[in-house]
Amino acid sequence: MNAQNETAKSASGKLGADLLLDSLYDGGARICFANPGTTELGLVSALARDGRLRCVLSLFEGVCTGAADGYARVSGEVPLTLLHLGPGFANGIANLHNARRAGSRIVNLIGDHATWHLAYDAPLTSDIHSLAQPVSREVIYLGKPEAITDGVSQAFAATNEAEGGAATLIFPTDVVDAPAPADFKPVELAAYQPAPVSDDVVQSAAAVLAEPGETIILLGGNALDEEGIQAGASLAAALGGRLLMEPYPAIVTLGGDLPMVERQAYFPDDVIAQMGDARVVLAGARMPISYFGYEGWPSQLVPEDRLVRLAEPGQDAVAALRALVDQLGGSPAPEPAPTPPASSPEPAAALTAASIVEELLVQLPEDAVISLEGSSMGGPWLKNAHRAPRHRVMTNTGGAIGQGLPCAVGAALAQPDARIISLQSDGSAQYTLQALWTMAREGLKITVIIAANHRYAILQTELSRADVPLDDAVVANLTKLDHPKVDWVALAQGYGVEAVRATTNGELASALRHGLTLDGPLLIQAELP
Amino acid sequence: MNAQNETAKSASGKLGADLLLDSLYDGGARICFANPGTTELGLVSALARDGRLRCVLSLFEGVCTGAADGYARVSGEVPLTLLHLGPGFANGIANLHNARRAGSRIVNLIGDHATWHLAYDAPLTSDIHSLAQPVSREVIYLGKPEAITDGVSQAFAATNEAEGGAATLIFPTDVVDAPAPADFKPVELAAYQPAPVSDDVVQSAAAVLAEPGETIILLGGNALDEEGIQAGASLAAALGGRLLMEPYPAIVTLGGDLPMVERQAYFPDDVIAQMGDARVVLAGARMPISYFGYEGWPSQLVPEDRLVRLAEPGQDAVAALRALVDQLGGSPAPEPAPTPPASSPEPAAALTAASIVEELLVQLPEDAVISLEGSSMGGPWLKNAHRAPRHRVMTNTGGAIGQGLPCAVGAALAQPDARIISLQSDGSAQYTLQALWTMAREGLKITVIIAANHRYAILQTELSRADVPLDDAVVANLTKLDHPKVDWVALAQGYGVEAVRATTNGELASALRHGLTLDGPLLIQAELP
Repeated sequence: MNAQNETAKSASGKLGADLLLDSLYDGGARICFANPGTTELGLVSALARDGRLRCVLSLFEGVCTGAADGYARVSGEVPLTLLHLGPGFANGIANLHNARRAGSRIVNLIGDHATWHLAYDAPLTSDIHSLAQPVSREVIYLGKPEAITDGVSQAFAATNEAEGGAATLIFPTDVVDAPAPADFKPVELAAYQPAPVSDDVVQSAAAVLAEPGETIILLGGNALDEEGIQAGASLAAALGGRLLMEPYPAIVTLGGDLPMVERQAYFPDDVIAQMGDARVVLAGARMPISYFGYEGWPSQLVPEDRLVRLAEPGQDAVAALRALVDQLGGSPAPEPAPTPPASSPEPAAALTAASIVEELLVQLPEDAVISLEGSSMGGPWLKNAHRAPRHRVMTNTGGAIGQGLPCAVGAALAQPDARIISLQSDGSAQYTLQALWTMAREGLKITVIIAANHRYAILQTELSRADVPLDDAVVANLTKLDHPKVDWVALAQGYGVEAVRATTNGELASALRHGLTLDGPLLIQAELP
Repeated sequence: MNAQNETAKSASGKLGADLLLDSLYDGGARICFANPGTTELGLVSALARDGRLRCVLSLFEGVCTGAADGYARVSGEVPLTLLHLGPGFANGIANLHNARRAGSRIVNLIGDHATWHLAYDAPLTSDIHSLAQPVSREVIYLGKPEAITDGVSQAFAATNEAEGGAATLIFPTDVVDAPAPADFKPVELAAYQPAPVSDDVVQSAAAVLAEPGETIILLGGNALDEEGIQAGASLAAALGGRLLMEPYPAIVTLGGDLPMVERQAYFPDDVIAQMGDARVVLAGARMPISYFGYEGWPSQLVPEDRLVRLAEPGQDAVAALRALVDQLGGSPAPEPAPTPPASSPEPAAALTAASIVEELLVQLPEDAVISLEGSSMGGPWLKNAHRAPRHRVMTNTGGAIGQGLPCAVGAALAQPDARIISLQSDGSAQYTLQALWTMAREGLKITVIIAANHRYAILQTELSRADVPLDDAVVANLTKLDHPKVDWVALAQGYGVEAVRATTNGELASALRHGLTLDGPLLIQAELP
């Protein structure tokens, strides 16, 4: 602590923690998903003094990081997480993995031991950098108060690289408890802009596509918003091609007067059949690959010579599509084939995934946001989403399960006027069920539909494909969740969330109608075969 | 795949996965705490074919790793965990951090993408090594079938280093799906032995202690078993000194005819006062340091010239203590000061931490194992444990919260004839509450007492010490859990665990009596002020 800093303290009265918050605020942060511990209390005090950032508490860190992801997807803004040392951060890694795949811009804050205490290897000491690196574009250690503002600028800059992602700031307690330095370079807001696609790339794509041939336009990244889908549809119509979306969009706009967008399939054999012999235009999407490696099937599902690489994830695929339409001439998308209007399924019949989707098509309010996790309802919904009013859908981008409920929390906070629907498989919901408490605490307008089939259905599907008998005792023990069956109504009530169980279409319809009027959350346990 | 391997397959009919399991079994593994995904299904099939290892499923990976920790502490054997890729493993890191601090010997198994699929950066691809390194003595990648047996031997050897710890094996799907090699070096059982303390060290400790002076014997590691405590007590009696235990024992034997062992305090000022001017003999314990770094207080709480370094953690502190007693002459431990016999507190009075402890002293069965997490009941119990029948206590060694319930699961599986008591704070219980489902599923004789004070009490204590007002809106929002109050009875019932709420001593006494007769779990929500 030198004389200059003492001056700064008396001049500004601010500590490192205050400067850290000022810098984060200047960089655009307005909300903090927090689960602090002792090493974060200096920042908690500063948050209290400052009062400008909304703080949202969760009972588990995976809720914080998943909520930050959902908030970033829906708002495009940069939320903060505040987590406790290495182990607390570790609990948030799975959903930061999903956020990385979604390109969600997030700044993680982790309190660390005082710099002078680290060498003593106290119980909570661990290699935070090693833990954070796999899910962070950059991991920045704020080793002294003078490093705070540059570190924050660097963190925001890192979130703007390529398609975005999280940056992680580690702040030792003595650094945020020290007086803020008098001289610093203030942080400037640096909004994210996808990188432009060069004219050359557009030209050469146009040259390829001018030749006759079957064509698929595969949308991803920013091409999954309204403008991108319209540009893609116009191009597809001009070329007589098909419009597809990447299999796990971060956020996609669907329904209303938008054309149907077919989703890329999951298993490699299905994807290969789906792609046929078409040329595949990659418009913000990664090339089709197999989700897992299966013996006898390739990883890359469309040969290189059939790929037309228009826009990488993180590039401006919308502008590139429009430029391509300008080159090739677009056509108005053809009138969509008439689809059966949604109507409530037979009330007395037992629920199925299809009947839940049908009822939701009937009731979904305009401009809802759907958080989709799990195969039970994910596929059926995305096959039918074009029949619904305009809405947005978030999916599990990285495959780390436990993403859906927290993502719904973040979406509700980003857009409080929207109705959020969480279409959620029961197995994956368990990983971050503590999100229900935050829904109740914050009074979020989320209707959760738990597809309760009481098993890890995806594992059973994979095992069946590999001819493994599902009724073997060990196999059943590791894939069936029916002993005991989880009672989601009780769990929700334990967290203060109103809940109801539905076994028939009528019960679901009635519960859904009730949920969509509530000024807070409702959980529906939908019993599936 | 070469000709030799084809021969091996036809000769033995075994795949890499079978050889992996054989090797783990030969190394001593008998139980596997599992939460598998697609990349682990080859091993799941092999587990089904083999049938020798007990598989215990959890709904969240932190339950698997915490249960493995508890199992290792109670049994001294090496359990397995089976987790899904980087994100699934990440969910288990927090409790592996605690296991590392406990020196628990564990082998983690993580399925990875096929070697030939990795380069395609599929959604679930991540840097598993970077995630695993901070909580693993070694991270071993089984890059080909020929690497399996040596890798397993190396993993068990790594768990035997110093005081023990976890080793992590990463197995790509194509390696375990390939035929097992014909030639391999079988894995041999390598039991853990703490390293001996040299005679020189004992001699020089004896020389120091032969001088008059106040003395504290600080027990840790293997000196916290019955033999260690008796040897420590004998030495303390001979020197007129005091007997202390490290603040967070992995497992300690207490009660019955064992002398009282004072626990090292938490805050630095309290530890300094507790240690006074005494020489501190480190018998398997780390030197006293501050849990966190506090401005104005040292990290090291006993100056170097007052430390007598007899046995490091991982060394045989029991043998060293006995050798020292041989040198200096031991004395029979003095008759313990008479303590008031436990008696049930006033039935109509409201519960307090002290009254819960008092009732548990009355009812605790012989040879119970207590899993202790949280400050609400941890301190009060350890102050009074000498008044109970002989029992063992596990504590949170690494400070990563969410350890208590899973550790109780592992203890119950390691010692099915023992009654397990989980004395658990409510805040920390939330991080791995899914353990309740495994308790119900496996019918474990665990009685959980949740100290429900609906706040992060430790944070409030820390903030009060720093003069931060607890009623500030932001501070209260980040430390109070009373909006809504979690209903633990409902949560337990949601997982199929019988549960009851107690607000008075009489209600608690009656619930505890009931729980201790059950052939399965009971949860008691004990409402505290």
